[in-house]
Amino acid sequence: MKIAIVGYGNLGSAAELLHPCFPDLTLTAIYTRRPPESLPRTDRSVPLLPIERLEESDAECLILAGSSDRDLPLLAPEYAERFHIVDSFDTHAKIPEHLSAVGRSAEKGGRVALIAAGWDPGLLSLARIYTKSFLPYAKCNTFWGEGVSQGHSAAVRHIPGVKDAKAYTLPRAEAKLLASQGIALRDTERHRRKVYIVEQEGADRNKIARAVARIPGYFAGYETEVVFMDEKEFRAECRGLPHKGEVIAVGRTGKYRENRSSVAFSLSAESNPEFTASILLASARAVKRLAEDGKCGAFTFADIPPKYFLPPDVSLLKML
Amino acid sequence: MKIAIVGYGNLGSAAELLHPCFPDLTLTAIYTRRPPESLPRTDRSVPLLPIERLEESDAECLILAGSSDRDLPLLAPEYAERFHIVDSFDTHAKIPEHLSAVGRSAEKGGRVALIAAGWDPGLLSLARIYTKSFLPYAKCNTFWGEGVSQGHSAAVRHIPGVKDAKAYTLPRAEAKLLASQGIALRDTERHRRKVYIVEQEGADRNKIARAVARIPGYFAGYETEVVFMDEKEFRAECRGLPHKGEVIAVGRTGKYRENRSSVAFSLSAESNPEFTASILLASARAVKRLAEDGKCGAFTFADIPPKYFLPPDVSLLKML
Repeated sequence: MKIAIVGYGNLGSAAELLHPCFPDLTLTAIYTRRPPESLPRTDRSVPLLPIERLEESDAECLILAGSSDRDLPLLAPEYAERFHIVDSFDTHAKIPEHLSAVGRSAEKGGRVALIAAGWDPGLLSLARIYTKSFLPYAKCNTFWGEGVSQGHSAAVRHIPGVKDAKAYTLPRAEAKLLASQGIALRDTERHRRKVYIVEQEGADRNKIARAVARIPGYFAGYETEVVFMDEKEFRAECRGLPHKGEVIAVGRTGKYRENRSSVAFSLSAESNPEFTASILLASARAVKRLAEDGKCGAFTFADIPPKYFLPPDVSLLKML
Repeated sequence: MKIAIVGYGNLGSAAELLHPCFPDLTLTAIYTRRPPESLPRTDRSVPLLPIERLEESDAECLILAGSSDRDLPLLAPEYAERFHIVDSFDTHAKIPEHLSAVGRSAEKGGRVALIAAGWDPGLLSLARIYTKSFLPYAKCNTFWGEGVSQGHSAAVRHIPGVKDAKAYTLPRAEAKLLASQGIALRDTERHRRKVYIVEQEGADRNKIARAVARIPGYFAGYETEVVFMDEKEFRAECRGLPHKGEVIAVGRTGKYRENRSSVAFSLSAESNPEFTASILLASARAVKRLAEDGKCGAFTFADIPPKYFLPPDVSLLKML
């Protein structure tokens, strides 16, 4: 299947790097809203084109590598009518809305759209669904980190006086212990945050720290530590975009609920964009197979037979 | 949906115990090949009937709680024509054969058969499929234990001179370390076995130990420790039927494959039969939904959209 990537940030360039690992997919081009010649490239084997030229594309499926707050709510419904699409929309609370908007377009055009692909939502959603299904009286907790939260980092960089910033999400060890005993906790009880900031010359550190703590949805309500450092330290300490995630679920069986059944699903990526890009590329395969089944509309991982993601040369029966 | 349980061993009685946790399923009866009045019961609210009376059953779906070596290869193809069925067939190498045999019956009768449900095959199969799909250059290792292997225990009990026995499978800590570094290992490198035996009076311990080590497929090729004890010790030490399992998968991304992405899926059941029974009951739900889609034939977890296992009162969108 011919695919194209839309967006050339961390995720889009990771998908470019990894597409040779998916030989059943042919990457035809990458599209960007920025002037293509302004962007650094090490490998020029696939053309990088201005977004306007997407209309001429012969790709069947687009990998939408945009942000969930600004790009995907517009791009996904726009393109889902003409192309199959895969996106990694990750604002959990707005998934129902996004699913409907994208679904309307995809159905109109007779296309398949797979949204909210990635590791959370995505792999961790699957862990929540299977454990809720199979463990009676299940108590399920999701942990993120330790790792760099890119949305949180961007939110801090928007504060006046901030030159650069990286926000880390850290799971609390004591919360994992409680989770493994079957106690359901709130997000703010499971996590704390740590933010590394390089301030602009003359900026007021206290003012910046107070502004961070007040950002609703991101830091308000969480124990947040803010660390200021100079640019050299920042570059040495805050390298890469690693991340981790874990679902811990505990159920009870037995006449008196005396027997515990528990499941822990954990993942760790030294490069979060590269891990997410691999998931998006494998998702394009599932899109192709859904389309071959005659399906159209918007889907999430919850709707898709697991075997649809497998490489074509792998024997399913050997995996069972 | 009306269901019935066929078989009244550890798994069948665990399914009887847990069916109230699945209020969308109505357990109509349990069928056994043994004389029903000879079997001890604490709760008589569901009738226990001789297997011959299965022909009069109005159940739509049967939970087949039999063994993979003796019962399921006969029972599953026999019943799959008249009823939807769920089984926990777990002889990995023979799944393709079982799938075909059951599939032919189910298609003939227009029924749905879900085979190889449980935690391995089952949940761990899903972990292998998803990681093989999403992690480039994936190296995947499955670990069992520590826990009681019921098939292995039965094989030891068949040795002349053995009065009672329990076989434990133990994962090797050093193998888990290698697995987490992305090295694929053989079964015999990942596990060792420990067998506790009560011998019959006058039996030759050395002869029994040699016979254990020679059982092909079960102990031959594995480091196996045999411990003899008297009946009192055995009852105190070898209690319950706990088990554990884990899939550890490591993939590589990056230009020079320098970034690791890893996934660990682990589960632990204080009662293996009760955990497996919960999975079989949730699987009956999936069978119902496949039948409502107009499907027939034999399926495994790999073929089924994850949402089909969820309880009807759970909001899927909140799980994403």
